[in-house]
Amino acid sequence: MNNHTPVPAGFRGVAGNMGIKDPEDDFFVVISEVPANVAAVFTQSRFAGPSVLLSRRAGAEGRARGVITLARNANVATGRVGDENAQEIQERVAAAAGVRPTEILIASTGVIGRPYPMDRIRATLRALPEEFPPADLDRSAAAMMTTDTHPKAVSVRVGNATLTGIAKGVGMIEPNMATMLAWFFTDADLEQPVLDGVFRRVVERTFNALSIDTDTSTSDSAAIFANGLAGPVDPSAFEEALHKVALDLVRMIASDGEGAGKLIEVRMTGARDDAQAKRIAKAVVNSPLVKTAVHGADPNWGRVAMAVGKCSEEYDVLPENVRITFGEVETYPTEATDKTLERAAAHMAGDEVIIGVDLGIADGSFTVYGCDLTEGYIRINADYTT
Amino acid sequence: MNNHTPVPAGFRGVAGNMGIKDPEDDFFVVISEVPANVAAVFTQSRFAGPSVLLSRRAGAEGRARGVITLARNANVATGRVGDENAQEIQERVAAAAGVRPTEILIASTGVIGRPYPMDRIRATLRALPEEFPPADLDRSAAAMMTTDTHPKAVSVRVGNATLTGIAKGVGMIEPNMATMLAWFFTDADLEQPVLDGVFRRVVERTFNALSIDTDTSTSDSAAIFANGLAGPVDPSAFEEALHKVALDLVRMIASDGEGAGKLIEVRMTGARDDAQAKRIAKAVVNSPLVKTAVHGADPNWGRVAMAVGKCSEEYDVLPENVRITFGEVETYPTEATDKTLERAAAHMAGDEVIIGVDLGIADGSFTVYGCDLTEGYIRINADYTT
Repeated sequence: MNNHTPVPAGFRGVAGNMGIKDPEDDFFVVISEVPANVAAVFTQSRFAGPSVLLSRRAGAEGRARGVITLARNANVATGRVGDENAQEIQERVAAAAGVRPTEILIASTGVIGRPYPMDRIRATLRALPEEFPPADLDRSAAAMMTTDTHPKAVSVRVGNATLTGIAKGVGMIEPNMATMLAWFFTDADLEQPVLDGVFRRVVERTFNALSIDTDTSTSDSAAIFANGLAGPVDPSAFEEALHKVALDLVRMIASDGEGAGKLIEVRMTGARDDAQAKRIAKAVVNSPLVKTAVHGADPNWGRVAMAVGKCSEEYDVLPENVRITFGEVETYPTEATDKTLERAAAHMAGDEVIIGVDLGIADGSFTVYGCDLTEGYIRINADYTT
Repeated sequence: MNNHTPVPAGFRGVAGNMGIKDPEDDFFVVISEVPANVAAVFTQSRFAGPSVLLSRRAGAEGRARGVITLARNANVATGRVGDENAQEIQERVAAAAGVRPTEILIASTGVIGRPYPMDRIRATLRALPEEFPPADLDRSAAAMMTTDTHPKAVSVRVGNATLTGIAKGVGMIEPNMATMLAWFFTDADLEQPVLDGVFRRVVERTFNALSIDTDTSTSDSAAIFANGLAGPVDPSAFEEALHKVALDLVRMIASDGEGAGKLIEVRMTGARDDAQAKRIAKAVVNSPLVKTAVHGADPNWGRVAMAVGKCSEEYDVLPENVRITFGEVETYPTEATDKTLERAAAHMAGDEVIIGVDLGIADGSFTVYGCDLTEGYIRINADYTT
């Protein structure tokens, strides 16, 4: 793990172990020295946990100071005691950081249905330093991992400002409003409504375009904190930068999907509109038969046709207008020869498989990201709680 | 394979090999001696192949003589030549059987995107006997297998009549109107509109309640042929009998799902209505995290909660009203002790895992059927065409 991810001005923090499950790092706090504009999105799950509910409230006014993240336990479906524990953690962190509890977002990730070991958590929070050192976002990214195999952090410069994002999540991933957990920190100065618009547009084309296993987590949360210390930036340059950082994180998450060997990118074009392109692209990237074909580097384009075809309500999708490619190689409708199939198989042997589908209707397009389905996913998930 | 499945009066047929891919049996024809009432349902796939299109037309008037089924090749996405081949096969079988082509349903299952080896198929069809012997429905059920590990046939008596169903299909299974292929033959006498109503109601609660891998085939077809030779039967007794036969076949299909080790039955109760119960039950039975937990016999009820929760549009689902059970063991909301989890794990160690979810809203209910997700599914599907 490198420790070189740049930290924007004015972000301090702590990362470490609070004994939630084992001696590995399992929490971090990041706090801005000054109030930051915040934009945030959360899971739409009906079983959203108390951390999500508290964070929704904390981010509601567009201003916040920071976030605490706890790994190894999602604190979901833990009843009233779970609510109380989340609130107590939020309050204790706020007290240590000298801010109001409603200025701190809180996120939890891990097993569902187990109460927190509050004695150990309280002991750790009581021992937080009086003044936080500058944040270590690499260690923070590592502290929130569950079945991730490596921490995920990306940083870019926008004008005079730094923008850094960290994320985790490799299973239970088909975010509805955000990924498992993704935090962005910047010292750029952007008005909150501008920040919010930029953030939502970027999330829609990045995290909401990602699916590892069609399972939407109870804990998905993503937020960006902009504390303004580096001064104003051009909003469209910032949006471009945020899109790059978010997309890099999404690709890292997809490549690190539980058991995954390959990133799958499905580029849907020629749709009636972008929304239709997204629906059908999701059907392709989520098809277990497409995912296993990619795992086997098998250019079985018939399964792509099947996945497009099962979107039975898309009345304007006509097989005779559809075009299917693997990488640069068209496999349908031109009858695929042994030679074209060999070239398609060669593309699929790589780490990134690009499946192109043109629907031949109009100009709508959407690209989604996922990963192959392997024996590793089964092994990881057949015995997770015990 | 036993050869004892009873054949209703008046059904004749042939099963054998036409060299579609290998020397195994790969086709059968079943023909009723007299015209039969027919009710049929087909895939909603936008990539439905020519066999489905021809069968839809053949069944449209509620009368038919029989069906030909070809395995090892789906004849889907094969362009104009695929259309012509399907029609030629239908015509040749009709000529051999002495009936009109529009009285014969045709179904094809197997790999997508490969043209039929018509020379070999023509040679086989030219050699069909002048008069068909009584149908052998066990051999027919075996002849249409692809990755099925055993043939699936079920027969019951209703009054003086016999009702026999055969089915195949263990992957690309989340039927939208029918399963991969399921044929029912009876000598009962039922008026066509009655037969049609009975059939559609039964299909909705059986084949349409089945999902192995969320992938809807391009070739799903199901039909019932009632030739009336055994005289009239009580329609409600017949519906009960058909439901039993169809459900037995569905359970056989789910248990034989690609790589499957266990049948999963999700019983959703307490819903706003049956449609809501079905939507949420499907989300549970299709969740790869639930399926892998069942594979690991891990009573990870949090994943069931997750799957219920991801149905984010079900506004009236409230976590505090939900109840989750494995077999007879409640795991939520009562806090699961080590002892209850042990009992739940013991239930999950069996061949049939029953997951109960009560939503606590009203009286809607629906039960769906699926199977666990194992390394075997990956192995079977990572390298199927090559």
